Parts: sequence; structure tokens; C-alpha cells
Amino acid sequence: MNLSHENLDDIFHPRSVALVGITTSNPGHWTRGFLEGYLKFDFPSQGKLYLVNPRGGTVEGFKVFQNIQDIPDTLDFVVGLVPSRGAPQLIEEAAAKGVKCIHFCTAGFSEIDDQEGKELESELLLAARKHHVRIIGPNCLGVYCPESRMSFSELFPRESGSVSFISQSGGNSNYLIRQAALRGIRFSKVISFGNACDLNESDFLEYLADDPKTKIITMYLEGIKDGDRFHRALKYAAEKKTVVLLKGGTTPAGARAVMGHTASLAGSHDIWESLCRQVGAIQVQNLDEMIDVLVTLTLLPAPAGRRALLFGGGGGSSVIVADVFEKRGMILPQVPKQVIKELREFSQAAGNFFNNPIDYSQSMDPANVKRALEILLRWGQFDFIVNFMVPGQSTRAGRFTDRLFNFDGISKPVAVVIPPTFDPAEGNSMFESINSYAVDGFPVYFSFDSAANAINLVLAYYEKMSIRQGS
Amino acid sequence: MNLSHENLDDIFHPRSVALVGITTSNPGHWTRGFLEGYLKFDFPSQGKLYLVNPRGGTVEGFKVFQNIQDIPDTLDFVVGLVPSRGAPQLIEEAAAKGVKCIHFCTAGFSEIDDQEGKELESELLLAARKHHVRIIGPNCLGVYCPESRMSFSELFPRESGSVSFISQSGGNSNYLIRQAALRGIRFSKVISFGNACDLNESDFLEYLADDPKTKIITMYLEGIKDGDRFHRALKYAAEKKTVVLLKGGTTPAGARAVMGHTASLAGSHDIWESLCRQVGAIQVQNLDEMIDVLVTLTLLPAPAGRRALLFGGGGGSSVIVADVFEKRGMILPQVPKQVIKELREFSQAAGNFFNNPIDYSQSMDPANVKRALEILLRWGQFDFIVNFMVPGQSTRAGRFTDRLFNFDGISKPVAVVIPPTFDPAEGNSMFESINSYAVDGFPVYFSFDSAANAINLVLAYYEKMSIRQGS
Repeated sequence: MNLSHENLDDIFHPRSVALVGITTSNPGHWTRGFLEGYLKFDFPSQGKLYLVNPRGGTVEGFKVFQNIQDIPDTLDFVVGLVPSRGAPQLIEEAAAKGVKCIHFCTAGFSEIDDQEGKELESELLLAARKHHVRIIGPNCLGVYCPESRMSFSELFPRESGSVSFISQSGGNSNYLIRQAALRGIRFSKVISFGNACDLNESDFLEYLADDPKTKIITMYLEGIKDGDRFHRALKYAAEKKTVVLLKGGTTPAGARAVMGHTASLAGSHDIWESLCRQVGAIQVQNLDEMIDVLVTLTLLPAPAGRRALLFGGGGGSSVIVADVFEKRGMILPQVPKQVIKELREFSQAAGNFFNNPIDYSQSMDPANVKRALEILLRWGQFDFIVNFMVPGQSTRAGRFTDRLFNFDGISKPVAVVIPPTFDPAEGNSMFESINSYAVDGFPVYFSFDSAANAINLVLAYYEKMSIRQGS
Repeated sequence: MNLSHENLDDIFHPRSVALVGITTSNPGHWTRGFLEGYLKFDFPSQGKLYLVNPRGGTVEGFKVFQNIQDIPDTLDFVVGLVPSRGAPQLIEEAAAKGVKCIHFCTAGFSEIDDQEGKELESELLLAARKHHVRIIGPNCLGVYCPESRMSFSELFPRESGSVSFISQSGGNSNYLIRQAALRGIRFSKVISFGNACDLNESDFLEYLADDPKTKIITMYLEGIKDGDRFHRALKYAAEKKTVVLLKGGTTPAGARAVMGHTASLAGSHDIWESLCRQVGAIQVQNLDEMIDVLVTLTLLPAPAGRRALLFGGGGGSSVIVADVFEKRGMILPQVPKQVIKELREFSQAAGNFFNNPIDYSQSMDPANVKRALEILLRWGQFDFIVNFMVPGQSTRAGRFTDRLFNFDGISKPVAVVIPPTFDPAEGNSMFESINSYAVDGFPVYFSFDSAANAINLVLAYYEKMSIRQGS
């Protein structure tokens, strides 16, 4: 039984949501996180929000219904926070209220290494089939869709974006959304889907492939339910959208961890690598690399080629950044002697060199940096600029490099590399710099290599796509 | 003319130092950084510190001599902050005061792409030979030796350690010392030696190989003056000490940057890789990897083998950390069923799994974490523990994970992984956690992969060394 796209779409646009099993007594309890999310996103301004707990009472001004049947309304979506043993019964009760989809946050099913958990999950699926209800989960955080004011956390951005994330892990969803948000990424839909006893990665992938709000689909998967179907879904999605994929559990120890986490079958590293190559998905190895790639896809205007102009401060840094970018397959065009001569005219000879990397060191003031950029742009034989600023290179205390220039009106794509420092003296102003660039829409990276790696992955993807378009 | 070890030793133990060319008018000028360093380290409590500038006057209560000849004392060491054209004359004047070694911070010599700089550097060397004075530099920051209260920055640690650093880049010296210090690394001697017109990498390497205060020699090199001699020196040093090496300029673009930075000849990546393999030096690719390796060498007691117990919080994180450590060649022994049963007795079933990684998630309190560790140590079939704590995995605001346990009395080596967040809500408490572990002498790493990579490099080094000892 496949839910059609239209029905999956309903999941992301509920008119009424019930948080069933939310704790009434303890505001610190994890179930309260969902209420915090829906309230912070002001879901009640456009839909009905109901709380259910056998104890009744009120929470945050909301009447708590003792039973889902008592709610004087039909229900579209339920967040199930009940203990695992009560889950099958909740399906029956929810179906009676018209619910088409329940997200079970509850854990304690097939991911537990005992017979009871597995049986309980089978029972859950049987009840869902019987009552024509679809399940997200169990053992997951469910849906974040800022456009519809649905959020399992109050900490996520209110604004929508073009990235959608399908994640088998709740913790990884939180990490990705929160860390990526700090670097300017916004999401259309995030689904944390856990054990996937019913709706699975292929369902969401097919849906997002056709979702007009989603431009990039990124995935954290631990295992797949049906290899052939997933292969087709991935191929279909990768033809319509940019797909980024992180496969957890590609080693024996990782696969064991997967078994304990979401009870999925993991599959080897080689299989996943060839699958991604075949369909044209971008494969990444960890969540930070995923964020680097998302930042590149969404915030770095597509460069026309691999010619990088490296522009930053510090002699030793310049040598290392040049090595790193060239090792990752970038081309560092040499700056012509005439251009270097022009640059030398208004800069100290000492501690600066100008043959890509351009080392502007500490000796240039903002006006001179601007002038240098203008000269380099007039020459223009490069496809993008990498501006690097390394803290902790100085012998003296002081703020981390103030933002020297804003790149306003610069006609080439600009990437910014700021390796973080934990030095309390520079840490705060470094954060300000990172934030200032991110807010202005620049892709910011935290190391030379992570920048070069992500830009290489994305350029390789663009190159592959244009070859296809050309053929 | 080779300076004997004894004479090089004098460089690091001067009885009198003159800062020649220090600015008298502008406290913000970079030359003042040296005075700040020598004062902060209280050099005057054990040696004589003199300032020289033609303008005279006083600075920070010190009389400024207008001429080095006016100093009523012999001099052991000079920090040359004079313009490049005045450098040869300073050698003659310094020699007259008994100086055996001058460090020239001054840039504007062979690293500049013109004839004048090269000629000036030749002239400098001629003057040095004529007057029997040795030169460190030019175009560098010179000597940091906390034991002798010599420092080119007030920001470096006052305490001595067992690591010595030979660096062709001043900025990279600052970065390494400052960033490594935050993670608990302390230094015996750091030499930033720049263009190496006289004393070079081989001189310092041979000296440090025999220096009883130095256990680890780490190097950032851009080029070498004499390949055969360096090969011999590296072999000699690697037999006596642990040697870590970062070679900048191993790509064509990196090599061009090297030419502009210290005018050295760079050499290809393959040559350096085989050289390191041959002599048993640990090769790294960037400064952060260098710090990871130093932290492992100095703060992680040598594990008996590659069996890691991964111990941390979060299901998705656990899957990724398992993959990463296995890919880097670690062995993740499976926890026996009986041990898992013991762990289950006092932990929630949901959201925890115990088959290495041990996912203690949020459900364990410190007492239970301690109890879990005791059970695991009684089993004991692992060589070291990796404790990982990932910020931003939660749906709710709050402090980053408080330090759950202090590992006091834990009989196995412990590594700590805390990926940094830039979330203002958790950033500060994350810094506190990092600092708290570093202060207590634990090796702290900032990503799963950087930890696994550094531990692998160091284990491979230990394995190689013990094979040698056995053969």
C-alpha cells in the first residue's frame, strides 16, 4: 500500500495536531520539547493544537484531554509520546478521530535486542494497516516543517528554505538543523523517521523529489527496507533534485551500532559508493561534511570552473592553503607579473606575496584590500575567490581579524574560511565574524581542507550534471 | 662552519638580550610584541634586557640606548628589528659587543622577488661570517624558550614542556603554540627561522635531537638548504626522539607560495612521504593535524593495542563514530552478552545500546555512568577509551553536556572528543568542558575523524618503533 503524494503532502500540512502522552507534571521532561516547538512556531495561529494525558489538567494554558476521544474535533496528525506498550491502542483511537498519520516518538521496539520489542513493532504495523493509518517511526523525532509551523524543537529556524532532510536518527537531525542554521542553511522539510516500520526512506524520497519547495534532498540513512525500490527512488530523485547522502553503518562496527539504533540492515561501503556514483548523488562521510556541501550548494553561486583565487592573510597559512586546494583538484592560476606590479605599488613589500595565494597579511587596510580586489577582478582569470582568515597567527592580543571588506559588488563567487580558535581572547570576535558572513549569505568553512573538499565535491557534481545535459 | 651543540645551546640561555630597532613612539607597533613577551616572562629577573633605538628616550621604564655600542655590558643575543638595509651594519656593531647570535625579524630579503633583496641577504651572510656571528632568519620571529624566559609573544604559556618546534613560518609558530596551549601542550623550545640564510632546519634538528629537555620534535618546513645533511639529521633525530613533520609547498601552487614566503625550494609530496616513512617520522598535512598528533603523543598514555571502547551519547553519533574509527584501522571489540545484561539492569532500554559504541545517551546520571564504566573495566578487553560528547543533538535549550565523570582512577587511556558548536547557547559551556578536560591532562579532539586519524598515526608510529626494538 503506497500512500499517494497528495496524502503524504497532508502530513506536512495538518489542520489539527495532538501531542498524546505529553507529561503534565514535569516541565523538564523531554516530551515537553514538542510543545515548546509547536508554540514557538505559533502553530495555534493557523491550526488546532491538542494535548492528551490520562491525568488531565492544564499545561501552558492548554486544557489537557484525558483521552483522545474527548477532543471535540477531527485530528489530522498525532505525535505519539506514549509508552511503547500503549502504542497499538493509540492507533485505533486516533483512527476513530480521522487521523491519517501518527508519528511515534516512542522507543522500545525492534531496536531493542529482545523478542518483545520486535513483536510490539509487528503489532503496531498490523494495527496501522487495519485502521488505514500511516506511521512515522517509531523511535524518532518526526516532522519539522517551518512553513506549516510544525517543529519538534523550539531551537530551529522559523524561516523556510530549499533543503529537505530525511534522517533515520533524531540526534543527527537536531545536530544538522542547528549547526547548519548557524551557517545560513534553511529547511523546507525534515523527517526523522527512526525504525521505519511503515513509511520509509523511499516514501519520503519520492515525495521530496516531486515537492516544489525542495531543491536539495539530503539524507542520513542507516539501512533500507527495500533495495530495489530505494534504488529506483534515488535515481528518480537525483534526476530531479540535488541529492546528498550520508550512509551510517558501512563498517562492521558501524553496522552493529545500526542494529542497536534503528534495527536496520546496513550494507557495505562499496555498494553505497557505486550506487551514489551511478545515480549522481553526492556522498558524504559525516554530518559536518554534509553541512559543508549544503553550504556550498546553497550559498556559493556555481563557479564556472575550478580556477580558485586564494586571498587571505599569513605566509605559512598561504603555503598550506595552496597545497590543500591543489591536492583537492582546484586550479590556482598564476597572477601575471603586471598585475603583481600593480599590487606592489600600494602595499609593503615585506610579508606579502601575490602569486595566488594573495597574502595581504596585516599590512593592508580595508581601502587597499578593496583596491587589490579590483585589480585582481580586472585581470579576472579565476572562477571563484576563497578568502581565508586564520586566528591566532599574531604575537599580540587583540580582536580576531575584523571583517576587512564585505565583497559587495564582487562579480565572482566568494567562499570564506575561518578556522575556529578556542582562545577566549579571540573566540568571541571570531564567532561574530563567522556569523556576520553567514548572515550576509556567504558560505563559511572551518578549515582549508573542509572547504576544498566540499567545493571539489560540488564542482564534481556540477561537472557530471553538465556532461549529462550535454549528452 | 658548524656551530657546536654547546654554542647553539647558548642561544637558548642568554644572559643579556637587546631588542634593537624597537619602536619608541607607537605602543601598537608590532616590534613592541617582543618587549611584551620578554616582560611578561620576566626575563629581567634572570638576565639583562636592553632596548635600542636611535631616538633614545624611555619605553616601559627602560632607558632606550641610541646605539648598541652605548650599552655598558656585553651582549649574548640580539633581536634585530631594524629595517633590512640596516641589518648588515647591526651585525658588525653587535659582534663588537660580544654577540654570538642575532635573530633578524626583519623581512625584505630573498623572499622578495627582486634582485635587491637577494643581494642584501648575501651581504648579511657575508657580514655574519666575517664577524663570527650566527643568524636566525631573516624574516621570522626567532626564539621562544619559556625555561629561559625568552618569548616573542606575551600570549604563550609560561610553563615549559617536552615539545620543541622548528618552524619556517612565524604565523604558523604563533598558531601552533597558541592553539596547542589551549589543549594542554607545553613547549621546551620553538624556533621560527624564516629564510634560514645561516642557521637552518638541520642545525636546529641536530641540536634538539641531543637536547635532554626535548622529547618530541615537530617541524613546519617549506624547503631545505642541504638535502643530504637534512636526511642525515632527520634520521639521527628520529632515532633519538619522536619527530613530527609538516612539509608546506608539496604542490606546484604551494611551492610557488613557498618561493614568495621564505624563498625555499619545496620538493614533491612523494619525496617527503618516503623520507618520513624511511626514517620513522610522523608526517602530517596541516597544523591542526599536527596538534592532534602532539596531543596524542603527550596526553594519551600509550595504548597496548588498537582495541577502542567508544563511549558516548547519541544513537546517530554512535553509528558515525563507529564507522570512522573502524575505517581508520581501530578494532572495536564486541561487548559480551553478559556484560550488556549487567549494563541493562540499571539503564533505560530505550535510546541506549551497548555493543561498542556504548551509547549512554541522556538517560544515565553520573553515578550510573561510573557504574557502567566499572562493569566495562572489569571486562576490560579493550586498550583505550574514547569518550565522545556531541553538542546540538538535543531538541531543547540548555547547557552543553556537563562533564559527567572525571575518569579518576580509570586504568585505561582515555581520549575525549567534543565537536565544537557555534551555537551561542551551548558554545560557552562547550568551551568550559573542553578546557576542563584539557586542564586535567586529557587529550581533547574536535571531531571523530581527527581523533581517529591522530590516534591511528601515533599507534602506527608506536607499532613501527616496537618492531624496530624487537628486530
